[in-house]
Amino acid sequence: MKLNYHSPFRPKLIKDYKPKNLNIYTCNAGFKKKNNDLLILTFEKKSSVVAAYSKTSTPSSPIIWDKKNNTGFCKSLIVNSGNANAHTGKRGIKNIGKYTKKASQIFHCKQNEILVSSTGIIGEQLDSKKIIQKLNNLSQISSKGILEAAKAIMTTDTFPKVKISKIKHKSNQITIYGFAKGSGMIAPNMGTMLAYIFIETSLKVTDLKKLLKSNIESTFNSISVDGDTSTNDTVMMFSNYTKNSKIKMNRNFFKVISRGVHDVMLSLSKQIVSDGEGISKLIEVSVTRAQNKTQASKAAFSIAESMLVKTAIAGEDPNWGRIVMAIGKSDNNIIQNKIIIKFDNLVVTKNGEMNPKINIKKLKRYMKNKIIKINVDLGIGKYNKKVWSSDLTHDFVSINSDYAS
Amino acid sequence: MKLNYHSPFRPKLIKDYKPKNLNIYTCNAGFKKKNNDLLILTFEKKSSVVAAYSKTSTPSSPIIWDKKNNTGFCKSLIVNSGNANAHTGKRGIKNIGKYTKKASQIFHCKQNEILVSSTGIIGEQLDSKKIIQKLNNLSQISSKGILEAAKAIMTTDTFPKVKISKIKHKSNQITIYGFAKGSGMIAPNMGTMLAYIFIETSLKVTDLKKLLKSNIESTFNSISVDGDTSTNDTVMMFSNYTKNSKIKMNRNFFKVISRGVHDVMLSLSKQIVSDGEGISKLIEVSVTRAQNKTQASKAAFSIAESMLVKTAIAGEDPNWGRIVMAIGKSDNNIIQNKIIIKFDNLVVTKNGEMNPKINIKKLKRYMKNKIIKINVDLGIGKYNKKVWSSDLTHDFVSINSDYAS
Repeated sequence: MKLNYHSPFRPKLIKDYKPKNLNIYTCNAGFKKKNNDLLILTFEKKSSVVAAYSKTSTPSSPIIWDKKNNTGFCKSLIVNSGNANAHTGKRGIKNIGKYTKKASQIFHCKQNEILVSSTGIIGEQLDSKKIIQKLNNLSQISSKGILEAAKAIMTTDTFPKVKISKIKHKSNQITIYGFAKGSGMIAPNMGTMLAYIFIETSLKVTDLKKLLKSNIESTFNSISVDGDTSTNDTVMMFSNYTKNSKIKMNRNFFKVISRGVHDVMLSLSKQIVSDGEGISKLIEVSVTRAQNKTQASKAAFSIAESMLVKTAIAGEDPNWGRIVMAIGKSDNNIIQNKIIIKFDNLVVTKNGEMNPKINIKKLKRYMKNKIIKINVDLGIGKYNKKVWSSDLTHDFVSINSDYAS
Repeated sequence: MKLNYHSPFRPKLIKDYKPKNLNIYTCNAGFKKKNNDLLILTFEKKSSVVAAYSKTSTPSSPIIWDKKNNTGFCKSLIVNSGNANAHTGKRGIKNIGKYTKKASQIFHCKQNEILVSSTGIIGEQLDSKKIIQKLNNLSQISSKGILEAAKAIMTTDTFPKVKISKIKHKSNQITIYGFAKGSGMIAPNMGTMLAYIFIETSLKVTDLKKLLKSNIESTFNSISVDGDTSTNDTVMMFSNYTKNSKIKMNRNFFKVISRGVHDVMLSLSKQIVSDGEGISKLIEVSVTRAQNKTQASKAAFSIAESMLVKTAIAGEDPNWGRIVMAIGKSDNNIIQNKIIIKFDNLVVTKNGEMNPKINIKKLKRYMKNKIIKINVDLGIGKYNKKVWSSDLTHDFVSINSDYAS
């Protein structure tokens, strides 16, 4: 990347966390010229794990591998950046076989207890020797916190994405944490996005599944940077057993955990969009009173992913006509005269035409904000959907016309 | 528009045509600061007409008007640019009522024989007086050729779009011609696109319908600039009766006409994409051997509309990984290992991985062309689809973040 772009949402200070029961090794294995590009996690005791993957029909080799091998237990997770090991055919799978075999020997576990992810350029064969060499010399690396883990998996990200959340249940405090990477090919049903969430208590795989399923729609599946779904997207959730975590599962405890999980997943999702390639403004689209879930979701994403809406926002232009257009094309059953569109709380259109009392000055001032809220009331039902996306800027074009060259 | 952008596909010389039986009046009515913005067509004898409209659920007032009123016969067509008369509610319809009433008086016809279109900014009320005033003074304007008609309906277009095609059937020569405008909000099922096709012979409305229906899928519904569907998109087809055109309709004559109609519609479609906002390269995506029509179409548009593919092409980057990604996300039944992707005839991937014999030098040279052909063989069926789109450039962002401000 030649250009010197940074997201305006890059946090000044990022909290770190040194997890229990988990070792984090990071290093440069030679996939990228500089910066760390290899992350090796090892659990002291095997962790329960569930995962959601990209719905693409051209999945990467790591996704094919994990789907086939994951039995719900994980001893180690190996993630590299700089090479996606995607569309690499049988050789791509073979290469994973080589380094996971070596890892299983070193970590004294079954090969199917090693999970893998990759992110980076599509189509190049991954040199397993680079990973094996580092596995052989793991003792020379000291274990770190999750911030270093987040850094090692970055590609076009301009800041590392971590989130720590503490929940309380009765006398127990449980930490839930996670880290993730974006920041291109982000769209619902997993963008080029890797995200790992850890719950520091002992949970059954069935409970983990429920937690992931009930929280993924409103978080990772509600964000879009470029509308493109990647070959490699993966969200994994681990229940990382610790000694003092033998609390009985019941409805109340599940709720408390779920809130903490949602907190971590939503934060990571919004951090991913906030670091969307070339972003200058974060767009939050909220569609309310749709006839059904699908209609709400289609309208919200149609607005959030419209190139014309995204460029208008970049230009600080309250061009609500393009929002009408995006709503109109999303579904046949929308009733034009019922639509109310607001920027934040400023009504721009209702009753099928421009709001005659529109305050242009206020509106123009609002458009200068870094976070732009588009609120759409369809007025024909009771279903809602909120999604986040980034605007479309010159920096987006620069980043994406230079990437591979 | 501040920036001085012109499509590299702008033709040096554009042929004009002075139609039979049809008067073309153009002028500036005050919707735009400069250049013509009003087109009034009057047929000497009523023409048969059929139309296809945007599938949006937020249609413009002209579309609502035409759909309600069009009975298959047209005495006059009134098109303005600079104001879309879209999302203007009941007042928008009322304003059309005013100027079509005046037109029906002047042209001695029924009000429902006046058809209308508008293009430009969404949400502003259209001042019908501007049109009425020009209708009152029509005698001061002299009738022109179709090139002036095309010019009067331009918005962000950088060149007027016309096409003339002559067909022969037995001893008769029939002229088919048309004009159109783009160039933003272009996506299948009508972009912000107005297109008018005229066949200089006498045809029944049922035959016109068949001609439009059988040719629209492979032409106007196969182009995309920004993936956005407008509120105003309209394609109209007229059978413009001329004295020497009493040829009997049969299968053979229909075929001959259909070929000519397709020629005009395809040319206008490609001209619209070639003038897509900020275009530097025309992208032609051809998907072959899909399992069904929908799969072929979804894959083709997924590639053609991917922001990441479009930026890669703009950067002359043969980033086929993004094409794999776009294919993968389009449909669940695609088989990764069967996909063959070529730039023109240069194979970049087959058997689920990169073509080992790839000639990078040739490939890089190919990417410098102004027209980039992406050929995808899905290898699992017999259905094909070809679509056209434009690349995504800095000029696109500039044009679209400045438009209304």
